[in-house]
Amino acid sequence: MRLNAIQDYYPDDVAHCYGCGKLNEHGHQIKTFWDGDETVTKFKPKEYHTAIPGYVYGGLIASLIDCHGTGTAALAAYKAEGRAFDTLPPFRFVTASLQVDYLKPTPLGPELELRGKVLELKGKKVISEITVSVNGTITAKGKVVAVQMPEKLIMKNA
Amino acid sequence: MRLNAIQDYYPDDVAHCYGCGKLNEHGHQIKTFWDGDETVTKFKPKEYHTAIPGYVYGGLIASLIDCHGTGTAALAAYKAEGRAFDTLPPFRFVTASLQVDYLKPTPLGPELELRGKVLELKGKKVISEITVSVNGTITAKGKVVAVQMPEKLIMKNA
Repeated sequence: MRLNAIQDYYPDDVAHCYGCGKLNEHGHQIKTFWDGDETVTKFKPKEYHTAIPGYVYGGLIASLIDCHGTGTAALAAYKAEGRAFDTLPPFRFVTASLQVDYLKPTPLGPELELRGKVLELKGKKVISEITVSVNGTITAKGKVVAVQMPEKLIMKNA
Repeated sequence: MRLNAIQDYYPDDVAHCYGCGKLNEHGHQIKTFWDGDETVTKFKPKEYHTAIPGYVYGGLIASLIDCHGTGTAALAAYKAEGRAFDTLPPFRFVTASLQVDYLKPTPLGPELELRGKVLELKGKKVISEITVSVNGTITAKGKVVAVQMPEKLIMKNA
């Protein structure tokens, strides 16, 4: 049985993110899962997500790394507490800093695979290292420092 | 007289970028200008460019910094050669690496102002430092390492 995506458990109040919110109909609605000790997101860019023709727009790659990083942080926080995603209080992270290295052009067309590893989980901060691959070749690497949102902000209208 | 935006002079073959291409009808079509020794881009996010409700999506901020950085690089390259934007060969840069620090939440609604400073211009590489402000308050800072695209790629169908 595959676990559900962490984004499916973000409380509705904080589920409007353009990158990963299930309630943002204009957005990317990415879904992030555990796969062993790594986290995975798969995403197929649209034909207009182009940089130079034939290659994926770097801003999209940065966006996916960003939201994959906050999703990875939430997954790691639940795992550290041994809690299911639907238990309270909810974990929701925002990005404090983002680093992206574009190693080679990313071909536009195939599905992208993002894989994350947790480098550090300490207090309200989670640092993850992320790769972006196309057909098994890594084209970009990222690092995301994510910090936990205050619970009162997450639950204000819940 | 205000100078035109650098993106208006990107050759058509490399003017499809989702962030800054004048030919990408789905994209942001940002426009980057000189303002004294700094470069400026202004951009009004859509209401769906949200992170948590009321605040701008961090992935959009990263995308704008990315394209403002490549635009700044092109502006700086023409300036260094004392050439007008419509002279050949054209300068077009892509991003090698991108760093974004989110200093505080960016309110969604007002126009964003990105300002860039060239830190280094050496060979085919331009490094710029970029701020993102809302109503005069800096909410994010970025650093972009941009590298010049090979001329043959820019002009292959020109």
